[in-house]
Amino acid sequence: MTAPRYSGLATFMRAPIAEALEGIDIAMLGIPYDGALTNRPGARHGPREVRNQSSLMRSINHATRIDPYALCSVADVGDVAFTSAFDIEASHRQIEAFVADVAAAGALPLSCGGDHSVSLPILRALAKEPVALLHIDAHTDTWDSFQGSKFNHGAPFRRAHEEGLIDPKKTVQIGIRGAQNVSEGWDYSQSSGMRVMFIEEVRAKGIPAIVDEARAVLGNGPVYLTFDIDSIDPAFAPGTGTPEIAGLTTAEALDLIRGFRHLDYIGADVVEVSPPFDVGGITALTAATVMYEILCVLAEVRAASART
Amino acid sequence: MTAPRYSGLATFMRAPIAEALEGIDIAMLGIPYDGALTNRPGARHGPREVRNQSSLMRSINHATRIDPYALCSVADVGDVAFTSAFDIEASHRQIEAFVADVAAAGALPLSCGGDHSVSLPILRALAKEPVALLHIDAHTDTWDSFQGSKFNHGAPFRRAHEEGLIDPKKTVQIGIRGAQNVSEGWDYSQSSGMRVMFIEEVRAKGIPAIVDEARAVLGNGPVYLTFDIDSIDPAFAPGTGTPEIAGLTTAEALDLIRGFRHLDYIGADVVEVSPPFDVGGITALTAATVMYEILCVLAEVRAASART
Amino acid sequence: MTAPRYSGLATFMRAPIAEALEGIDIAMLGIPYDGALTNRPGARHGPREVRNQSSLMRSINHATRIDPYALCSVADVGDVAFTSAFDIEASHRQIEAFVADVAAAGALPLSCGGDHSVSLPILRALAKEPVALLHIDAHTDTWDSFQGSKFNHGAPFRRAHEEGLIDPKKTVQIGIRGAQNVSEGWDYSQSSGMRVMFIEEVRAKGIPAIVDEARAVLGNGPVYLTFDIDSIDPAFAPGTGTPEIAGLTTAEALDLIRGFRHLDYIGADVVEVSPPFDVGGITALTAATVMYEILCVLAEVRAASART
Amino acid sequence: MTAPRYSGLATFMRAPIAEALEGIDIAMLGIPYDGALTNRPGARHGPREVRNQSSLMRSINHATRIDPYALCSVADVGDVAFTSAFDIEASHRQIEAFVADVAAAGALPLSCGGDHSVSLPILRALAKEPVALLHIDAHTDTWDSFQGSKFNHGAPFRRAHEEGLIDPKKTVQIGIRGAQNVSEGWDYSQSSGMRVMFIEEVRAKGIPAIVDEARAVLGNGPVYLTFDIDSIDPAFAPGTGTPEIAGLTTAEALDLIRGFRHLDYIGADVVEVSPPFDVGGITALTAATVMYEILCVLAEVRAASART
Amino acid sequence: MTAPRYSGLATFMRAPIAEALEGIDIAMLGIPYDGALTNRPGARHGPREVRNQSSLMRSINHATRIDPYALCSVADVGDVAFTSAFDIEASHRQIEAFVADVAAAGALPLSCGGDHSVSLPILRALAKEPVALLHIDAHTDTWDSFQGSKFNHGAPFRRAHEEGLIDPKKTVQIGIRGAQNVSEGWDYSQSSGMRVMFIEEVRAKGIPAIVDEARAVLGNGPVYLTFDIDSIDPAFAPGTGTPEIAGLTTAEALDLIRGFRHLDYIGADVVEVSPPFDVGGITALTAATVMYEILCVLAEVRAASART
Amino acid sequence: MTAPRYSGLATFMRAPIAEALEGIDIAMLGIPYDGALTNRPGARHGPREVRNQSSLMRSINHATRIDPYALCSVADVGDVAFTSAFDIEASHRQIEAFVADVAAAGALPLSCGGDHSVSLPILRALAKEPVALLHIDAHTDTWDSFQGSKFNHGAPFRRAHEEGLIDPKKTVQIGIRGAQNVSEGWDYSQSSGMRVMFIEEVRAKGIPAIVDEARAVLGNGPVYLTFDIDSIDPAFAPGTGTPEIAGLTTAEALDLIRGFRHLDYIGADVVEVSPPFDVGGITALTAATVMYEILCVLAEVRAASART
Repeated sequence: MTAPRYSGLATFMRAPIAEALEGIDIAMLGIPYDGALTNRPGARHGPREVRNQSSLMRSINHATRIDPYALCSVADVGDVAFTSAFDIEASHRQIEAFVADVAAAGALPLSCGGDHSVSLPILRALAKEPVALLHIDAHTDTWDSFQGSKFNHGAPFRRAHEEGLIDPKKTVQIGIRGAQNVSEGWDYSQSSGMRVMFIEEVRAKGIPAIVDEARAVLGNGPVYLTFDIDSIDPAFAPGTGTPEIAGLTTAEALDLIRGFRHLDYIGADVVEVSPPFDVGGITALTAATVMYEILCVLAEVRAASART
Repeated sequence: MTAPRYSGLATFMRAPIAEALEGIDIAMLGIPYDGALTNRPGARHGPREVRNQSSLMRSINHATRIDPYALCSVADVGDVAFTSAFDIEASHRQIEAFVADVAAAGALPLSCGGDHSVSLPILRALAKEPVALLHIDAHTDTWDSFQGSKFNHGAPFRRAHEEGLIDPKKTVQIGIRGAQNVSEGWDYSQSSGMRVMFIEEVRAKGIPAIVDEARAVLGNGPVYLTFDIDSIDPAFAPGTGTPEIAGLTTAEALDLIRGFRHLDYIGADVVEVSPPFDVGGITALTAATVMYEILCVLAEVRAASART
Repeated sequence: MTAPRYSGLATFMRAPIAEALEGIDIAMLGIPYDGALTNRPGARHGPREVRNQSSLMRSINHATRIDPYALCSVADVGDVAFTSAFDIEASHRQIEAFVADVAAAGALPLSCGGDHSVSLPILRALAKEPVALLHIDAHTDTWDSFQGSKFNHGAPFRRAHEEGLIDPKKTVQIGIRGAQNVSEGWDYSQSSGMRVMFIEEVRAKGIPAIVDEARAVLGNGPVYLTFDIDSIDPAFAPGTGTPEIAGLTTAEALDLIRGFRHLDYIGADVVEVSPPFDVGGITALTAATVMYEILCVLAEVRAASART
Repeated sequence: MTAPRYSGLATFMRAPIAEALEGIDIAMLGIPYDGALTNRPGARHGPREVRNQSSLMRSINHATRIDPYALCSVADVGDVAFTSAFDIEASHRQIEAFVADVAAAGALPLSCGGDHSVSLPILRALAKEPVALLHIDAHTDTWDSFQGSKFNHGAPFRRAHEEGLIDPKKTVQIGIRGAQNVSEGWDYSQSSGMRVMFIEEVRAKGIPAIVDEARAVLGNGPVYLTFDIDSIDPAFAPGTGTPEIAGLTTAEALDLIRGFRHLDYIGADVVEVSPPFDVGGITALTAATVMYEILCVLAEVRAASART
Repeated sequence: MTAPRYSGLATFMRAPIAEALEGIDIAMLGIPYDGALTNRPGARHGPREVRNQSSLMRSINHATRIDPYALCSVADVGDVAFTSAFDIEASHRQIEAFVADVAAAGALPLSCGGDHSVSLPILRALAKEPVALLHIDAHTDTWDSFQGSKFNHGAPFRRAHEEGLIDPKKTVQIGIRGAQNVSEGWDYSQSSGMRVMFIEEVRAKGIPAIVDEARAVLGNGPVYLTFDIDSIDPAFAPGTGTPEIAGLTTAEALDLIRGFRHLDYIGADVVEVSPPFDVGGITALTAATVMYEILCVLAEVRAASART
Repeated sequence: MTAPRYSGLATFMRAPIAEALEGIDIAMLGIPYDGALTNRPGARHGPREVRNQSSLMRSINHATRIDPYALCSVADVGDVAFTSAFDIEASHRQIEAFVADVAAAGALPLSCGGDHSVSLPILRALAKEPVALLHIDAHTDTWDSFQGSKFNHGAPFRRAHEEGLIDPKKTVQIGIRGAQNVSEGWDYSQSSGMRVMFIEEVRAKGIPAIVDEARAVLGNGPVYLTFDIDSIDPAFAPGTGTPEIAGLTTAEALDLIRGFRHLDYIGADVVEVSPPFDVGGITALTAATVMYEILCVLAEVRAASART
């Protein structure tokens, strides 16, 4: 690790490649799948490029002074290896199985997508009961069928609700924006009890107030964190399939994540990085940094729980 | 319209192609002209790329819940077809004629440039009396002759004032910045009575206060809205001919537009998108979204006036 | 059409938009579908960008002096409008139906993909009997199932053979190259009787000899021409999903097409343009020019048959 | 000059900046003008970027062993400073005056455009009688008025013929290709006696035969060399306004230039480099190398004439 | 200077090229050196591209109304000409000598790097006693040896402290952020008495308060200003070797510089612009504007001191 | 390996990561070092991006039908881990040690650079006696000191000759071109007995004749193959530090490599890929394919020697 950061095989944040799942506290994995998206493709290439840019990450967080590698055993456990990439449901089963193995081995999964549909099979693998959902995104992803599939990337949290994987009363969606052709997804979120924080509300109240309110919604039980890179403004993260201008700044995004320390996380993901639409790698760099900040938060929680 | 958004001919926001000008409430048109600019060219390609990126737009505004297509008949009426592209004044006459036809047919024109000189012939077509001007830009565009032409893209609002098309007392210029070799343009704006809001003032006061003050200037009469994409910071909109750093964020830009609802608009334009200098299409995406937000405001006003 | 070439809505080669299918000799259509590809995505955006770059095309061919617009009625008939984009077979049925309508109206279809799987439903729509196939490509596309689907973009001509749509004895595949993990596709082509011309043979013999030999294979009956942009070297056409270096030059590609005049064409396609992987639009420009050259050849044949 | 090549102010090929025109054998100048082009703009930025990339050039030609700096005094004399950039004819007068000054001081001008219209005023400055023209281009540039101006960049050599600046019988146009909407320009060239070598003829005969035939046309009198970068294939030179695929390779281009040694040159230009459409600077690099090869040829002739 | 801004040789801000060092108030120089950086290279190309983009700069500052050219004699004195580019210490000696010459001639040096290691030899040339340091950066650059050299670009201010060139009690570091593998550099800064303002503190307090506090630290004696472009967020300045997200906005950066008027400057630099990693030239544009704003501040001070 | 090619950690050609050096026939390694180059940097990032693009490679060569993985054990053994990156000689010692370990374990090294200086320490590790050198490049790399170091990337084969690592009588340099400031390097190659084949000779004679003549030079003893990506034309490989136009086509490059089967190789390298200057990844793709073709040749030889 004294070698220059541009050398060596690109793993997530230069973490070691896992030889087995055992003994890992936090398992970083790639889900190179974008078969469920509806517009500009390329998220299948996300894990590769996030790994690439993540070589710029280092260990000690300047703001929180958390060093995740000092607290936990962290490894790159590779990618889900798809064998039915044209079949959404079969692919989702492979994601579920991979994440279930990670969880069974005792590791917290930190996944890198892939389109947002991947959060559904992850939740199937992890949620033993309806969990709290901390959802940072430009879109509520609670829409219904599109192009004939109810498992498209605009629908995972509607399905998760229907399947009893998430508790809508403990679900908060932050950063929502962008015109829609029907209001059905927004309506579904709100009528099911989810707390939808549109971007205007986020900016008007400021991150600290948003964090406070969101923490009240999330409660003290198990929480899953899902971070869609399109929550961030396209100036900072152009490489995504459905960009919406006037989003979160990266400063706001990091402040959000740092605001959600000490929750009982069961896992997390960062999704929708589409390298073919990126410019200069800044989206992958942003996603890598977001993953690093989430890693810090997960590591702190994991280390604390190990001590108790 | 159930087809994927990347399919079909690229019209502005996937609006139907007008077969005739009659029966249209809001006519979106392209003005592929950049013969009057003084520095980096390419705005002639603006309408093409804004149409392309505008396929990502949808109908219901998440912030205002306006659905312009539910309120009005909206169409893409095509581009001004230039036949004397090397002659600024002849080209301006063609723009004026095209917009006059749109207005004569009863439609509100929402134009996509093109360099900023195009606003002058548009105003000639629309302004029956000196109108109020809501001008969002990095530059006052009230400079005088450059390279021998007084119709260059830095001069349209000086000419508009001289020609009695705008009322300087009802003119507000928001977002002004960037060094200049002489102060003459700034001085002209201010001495003629225009209200020049430099970007530092905008940031210091905040958008709501700026909106209040600007509305007081604009008054209740007919208003023309002109939006130069270089008002927005180059991080969000690099694809323009005369970028100036430290500009409006896209969030501020959208808040501005939403602040100017319920004015008596006679038309609007978005100009100076230069695709050859864009990166990853984000300037065209930003311009498309700005056009969509203006469309919402225009549609609301138009629908209200239709009801009365 | 006297307006500058960068103005107006982008149709294929600035051809008029068809208001109906009747009365068109050659119908250019887009098939924005890439749901069957196996590697780098983006061909769904192909028709949009080929239309965009095709504005640079003009009418009189400098080499053959064919002016297709003088010979035939040519129009842009729009895109196949998919409603089940996640389902390969359903999407193929929509392609087939669209092309069947074109053919029923009496027009020759010149399609722009999309991934190469789209040639299969086109052939289903057009081939009343096993037809000759002129196939220019880096890959034989006669492989079998991949990722669980036998309709993937590496398999269309195996399926076409199985379905009796093409006559392998009258099939020629030109430009084949690139390592493969198994030799099965190459073997299938050759054992079924197709004439496979690897790129080394093409270069060694030269285009005139290749044309002569290929024409002997194709015979005098109905011929379908399918042109995969990856047949061309990535220096000339980088924007494609499965690039293979050391391919055809564009000069060779044009010489090939011009060598195949006066065949009894039933249609043609140009596929696998992936704009997100393009640089500077040169792949779309190349594809547009290839489409133009094919249009010349089709128009000449069509006009001749109309006279007889 | 021992400093790294990326250091220092960017002059053409790192040549010294002229303090005066006297005492210079070959004067390299920039003509940052693109006001006469008809399609994609940006050639105004050509001189800047060609200077930038030309830092990669060095002195001794590996093929001919000519070292132009050992043979001649070579300098960068700066750019034409336009003051009426919106007026084609006024701008042409400024170009003519600048080049006339260079010639009056006894230097051979080697110009970097700019759009191709600039060759007309250069010829006005240099041609005391109808001169031979060696014209390498994709287009004959002998078309007539476009968009109302007969001085557009597709017309300079028609005007030059009309004005008696070039002798059509001693004019050769090499590399012509690309469809046209009318055949008038091609016809004009041929009917006036110019020798038009379409790209297919160039490839069929090979460069040595083309050179022989062209030299016979050019004769022994004064010759002007004009090189449009779009003569070269877009794979090698994508950054130009009117690209046409299947053009010259750079190897063919260099072989052409080297084939035209020992002519009685009165000057030369390289035009139509449009940096906003370039990718990775390769067009500017190609143009810089073409300029260097022309410089070698000019220097050899100049040194020889100095000795006699 | 009435010529279009894209014409002429690219000097810093179109300032005249110095023929001698005498008589210049402010000397702008390039230091094309990146031999001491540790990650992504390319800063050696910084001066060239900053000069290129700086043509967009003009004279009168819209915010402060300072016109540096009216106040002072400003010139571009060229680049340090390296002859031992592989040897950090020898290269540093050449930088020191060049800057010492500038200072000896009575000019204030405003340098454009190059990697951040160049500030050390600049300080050696300028600091007659320990000076105050105004340091805007994402990194403290007070780390120790890396890859065997203690003169790497992460260490200049540790060395400057050790060599008695800066007074740590009068040193303020603004904008610090980004994880580190060890905390040693941060600790060194703080334990030596430097005031480290992490980006979170900057955002929480706001620029005016930061300026006030920093001015108190800097005191009234001689001050050197060093501006690392990576202090600015990668959305605004992606072209740098060690980007860290969530940095200063350009608006904040300009407000900072304008906040530090009327200090007793001995020189300034802008460093770490890496054009190969830039997109659309916006980093170089940002750096050019930052240089312009610093030039305004320097000119005001210089003119004032000349009057006294 | 049935997973999609874009998934998984990026190793060279998706080969397995070596856990130990034993039992490997051909070891692919990265040398992320560019500390010895003299112009545009970035080759340090070469191995990372070549690995990335090499996922597009597959196993069976379509031209030779060699399947290297069927013939040999092939693995990715990682990168040389530098600890003194600012010191050319120390870095060279680390390269030498790494390659010596590979050779000691019985594997043939196939290296990916890095700048061309890396070939010198590789030869030190491999050459027990003066070996034959098959050198494909635009430059002879037999120049002397530059910027004070005789180990710069333009000098490795002069040093190799001086150190008795290569036999100049068995050295052939193919593809040489590009102007030089002095002829010394060319002269050194020729006077020392190396066979220098300038690109013009290569094109004039054609690849088969060049191969025949080169094989005669190389003889039957041990051969090292070094392939500088700048031997290939910048249209096919723009991403390199010292591009020279009019180079080899990729077709010629592959024909060259295939022409050199059945030599007694001791190792090979592909160098000078500079990703920051690449466009669309095509240089890395080209380099990956060149590596694959060399791998085929090495594997064939290795398997044959294993059988004997």
